[in-house]
Amino acid sequence: MNMSPLQKLRLEYKPEVAKALQDISTIGFEEVPSAPLLQEVSAVFPRLAAQENLKITHGVSVACSAKRVGVVFSGGQAAGGHNVIAALFDALHEVAPTSELFGFLNGPSGIVTGNYIPLTKEIIDSFRNLGGFDMIGSGRTKIETPEQLQGAFRVVKELKLDGLVIIGGDDSNTNAAYLAQYFLDQGLDQGSDQGYPISVIGIPKTIDGDLQNEWVSIPFGFDTACKVYSETIGNLAKDALSAKKYYYFIKLMGRSASHITLECAMETHPNLALIGEEVAAKKQTLSAVVESIVQLIQERAEAHKDYGVILIPEGLIEFMQDMQELIVELNRLLGGTKKNILEELSPGARYSFQSLPQAIQEQLLGDRDPHGNVQVSKIETERLLITLVREELRKRASTGRYKGTFSPQPIFCGYEGRSALPTNFDATYCYNLGRVAAVLIMHGKTGYMAALQALREPPAVWQPAAVSLVSMMHLEERKGKIKPVIKKTLVDLEGPVFKMFAAQREAWRLVDDYMQPGPIQFSS
Amino acid sequence: MNMSPLQKLRLEYKPEVAKALQDISTIGFEEVPSAPLLQEVSAVFPRLAAQENLKITHGVSVACSAKRVGVVFSGGQAAGGHNVIAALFDALHEVAPTSELFGFLNGPSGIVTGNYIPLTKEIIDSFRNLGGFDMIGSGRTKIETPEQLQGAFRVVKELKLDGLVIIGGDDSNTNAAYLAQYFLDQGLDQGSDQGYPISVIGIPKTIDGDLQNEWVSIPFGFDTACKVYSETIGNLAKDALSAKKYYYFIKLMGRSASHITLECAMETHPNLALIGEEVAAKKQTLSAVVESIVQLIQERAEAHKDYGVILIPEGLIEFMQDMQELIVELNRLLGGTKKNILEELSPGARYSFQSLPQAIQEQLLGDRDPHGNVQVSKIETERLLITLVREELRKRASTGRYKGTFSPQPIFCGYEGRSALPTNFDATYCYNLGRVAAVLIMHGKTGYMAALQALREPPAVWQPAAVSLVSMMHLEERKGKIKPVIKKTLVDLEGPVFKMFAAQREAWRLVDDYMQPGPIQFSS
Repeated sequence: MNMSPLQKLRLEYKPEVAKALQDISTIGFEEVPSAPLLQEVSAVFPRLAAQENLKITHGVSVACSAKRVGVVFSGGQAAGGHNVIAALFDALHEVAPTSELFGFLNGPSGIVTGNYIPLTKEIIDSFRNLGGFDMIGSGRTKIETPEQLQGAFRVVKELKLDGLVIIGGDDSNTNAAYLAQYFLDQGLDQGSDQGYPISVIGIPKTIDGDLQNEWVSIPFGFDTACKVYSETIGNLAKDALSAKKYYYFIKLMGRSASHITLECAMETHPNLALIGEEVAAKKQTLSAVVESIVQLIQERAEAHKDYGVILIPEGLIEFMQDMQELIVELNRLLGGTKKNILEELSPGARYSFQSLPQAIQEQLLGDRDPHGNVQVSKIETERLLITLVREELRKRASTGRYKGTFSPQPIFCGYEGRSALPTNFDATYCYNLGRVAAVLIMHGKTGYMAALQALREPPAVWQPAAVSLVSMMHLEERKGKIKPVIKKTLVDLEGPVFKMFAAQREAWRLVDDYMQPGPIQFSS
Repeated sequence: MNMSPLQKLRLEYKPEVAKALQDISTIGFEEVPSAPLLQEVSAVFPRLAAQENLKITHGVSVACSAKRVGVVFSGGQAAGGHNVIAALFDALHEVAPTSELFGFLNGPSGIVTGNYIPLTKEIIDSFRNLGGFDMIGSGRTKIETPEQLQGAFRVVKELKLDGLVIIGGDDSNTNAAYLAQYFLDQGLDQGSDQGYPISVIGIPKTIDGDLQNEWVSIPFGFDTACKVYSETIGNLAKDALSAKKYYYFIKLMGRSASHITLECAMETHPNLALIGEEVAAKKQTLSAVVESIVQLIQERAEAHKDYGVILIPEGLIEFMQDMQELIVELNRLLGGTKKNILEELSPGARYSFQSLPQAIQEQLLGDRDPHGNVQVSKIETERLLITLVREELRKRASTGRYKGTFSPQPIFCGYEGRSALPTNFDATYCYNLGRVAAVLIMHGKTGYMAALQALREPPAVWQPAAVSLVSMMHLEERKGKIKPVIKKTLVDLEGPVFKMFAAQREAWRLVDDYMQPGPIQFSS
């Protein structure tokens, strides 16, 4: 594999291991009582429902033995994933040199079909601290149908796996819980009252930042993605301030939740950062959001500033009242067919649809996601807003209400943030997460997500933990059925980050207070 | 001004000064005979025509005195510009603490209208090594009309300027030569045979890299822009290789010439990098270029690779034979009106126009540049190619010739590369260029561009030089008239960089040999 000088340098980086994770042979667990599950969740996961969350304790001597473990990347890339695998490899071999680690290829479909490679020291050493998921690839297949579940079980048995580590987001970890339950059920069928003995362990991964709660401080990859995007935003802000003629409409990847936009706003101080959750709380429609942007541009024009920086979360339009209604109707209406949409929509939704530019209408009617839903991430919200803002500014210009010039530039910060070289934080965080996963497998735990707490402190004092996958579940409609799934965490409008943002943003509107974080530095 | 921790850190960076530039009081010049000018150039610039290029020599003791100097940014941002100004400030004050430096605001229009600020140590110190042109802003006004020239002369006289430093690209430096000639003429009118005594000095600035020749190794900003774009391209390549489902069509800023694309290709090893100059040399049409991309995609699909990375220079379509003819006709036809285009185009151009997607047709008919030309940079070539490639792949799929899936993502690497934090190279290069400019002003030289040679060596041994602006000129049509202008340097298909690329690119098509340069590191 060809490597840049920086990639070669990063291979040598040594992530610090938390003190609590250094001696695997003396790690034990303390159960932490958690809130009772929803009855519907308990019903679907009877064998996992009684599990408590865990904190790691010390001084317990445990007989660690050689383990056979499989690992898979599930879903979109996030920086640091290779270090989870490297840590698993190191920990398993530290305990017993005869341990084996298998990498399932190109996502969970590799588990179903038995497509895997044994991971050797040579492979591991050539991916330490590097970005991407290319060591073994990733994919979005879910293991859901009876045939898929049986296939996975067959492969797991053939490989005599003691553990299966699933590196994924909320959906993939939901799937991990179903797998854990299924493997336990298979054991029961075979007369064991312990279930089939395999540890299914999830790792919190997603740049979107929407997998966080009392136990999981943040998914890995969020830190790197925000820093990559903030580099770009800071550069564009500097450019806006220099040329004084462009409005940068910057859409930021991150699916529904606006965590990335919020974090990048704190790092760069844009003139406006739209937060989807706030748009929803205020029940704003598309035209209300457009009005808020036009208002900013008009105020700045009056201050002789025909330039600026506006951040737009990828999921924004899902949070607009009228667009959400339209999307819900479109999701229900279309089973792949694109005909007669206008006739079938309700009058309100039809009006909303018709008021959209042609290009956006086509994007709404484009390919569906695997759940059969409109792919909101494919809608070019930054271009939609530019088109509608321009129309409104023209109206105001014609009546003399607005006197500026408007040169917008649509920007999308997306895929380049997923496979970047991980920051020192993500590299170290992932390495420690992988080590927690190894410990959980040593102890035969299943249906847990590896976690670390006290992440704002130095790595030495990070606190390892494990959270039961089902404890994070609530009920959602999926393909027309109500199912227990791990809850996506949206931006909390009462939380400290949003409050800090809300306290400062007024000051950023007219006085350009841009910050330029610059490129990620690995040395400090 | 709000600053990130990295910006604050960069303020403290000390660019190394070339040995040859350390003691300003002992610097002299040696004339280097250059090729004779075109007669048409000599005719327009009679007072500059006899000037030879200069190399700096030493041991000459020169009486340096306090100077009053103005400086201006002209045209698009490029990383390092603030260091040119910082070096000017430092050098002028090193020679005489009573020297004064004035910054003209928001581009050359500031010279015409007398819109300037005195630059103080406090201002200078808060922009050292930082990106953007926001210390004094930039702009694209040219000083061309008699009124503009008179305005500039009045301001220069009022401020009693000894020197005027114009930081710009080929157009801005062409304009600098006209200004130098005009000021000399004004002196003559007033009975002096020396002309009005002001040094007009140009600094080679443009991320596009198209201002390079025997004397000017590279314009500043090119290094930083290529590294910013290569970071993104490397991240996207890693992402393509991980997810194995996207084709990234990456358009790179850089105007006509494909220097940036070529350099980024060498840094990242994409599957395909289109080079405009080669497309022109091969007389390829749009459909030939589309065919070459489709061919790549088909070959990769046969190798079970439905993903890849394709680099597209911003100016590509100008180099396609049919598109160039269309653009030339459009440039001639339209004086702002958008009507009856189809009727007025020649049959060939009409056919080309009609074969384009609607969105691209609109972009071709959109706002013109200040010369009245179609703004090629506003045409979304990456989207045009995706549309046409998709059409052709569908045709081939329908006959069974192509069996892959095609998920393209259009990407534009642009404005974020102009105002990034300068690399150590650009920071140091600019600081030394500013110092060369100061020396030229001390010696009363005018109509020169500051230059440094041996840039591949450590900064200590860089060789200062000055190249006569008119010596870089050739003849071009501007607004219907043939005028002497500084020549843009296109990619040389016989040059070492292109040859190195051509020797390797076949190996990059099917075997993924991507490199990920990662973010710019300032510490090494």
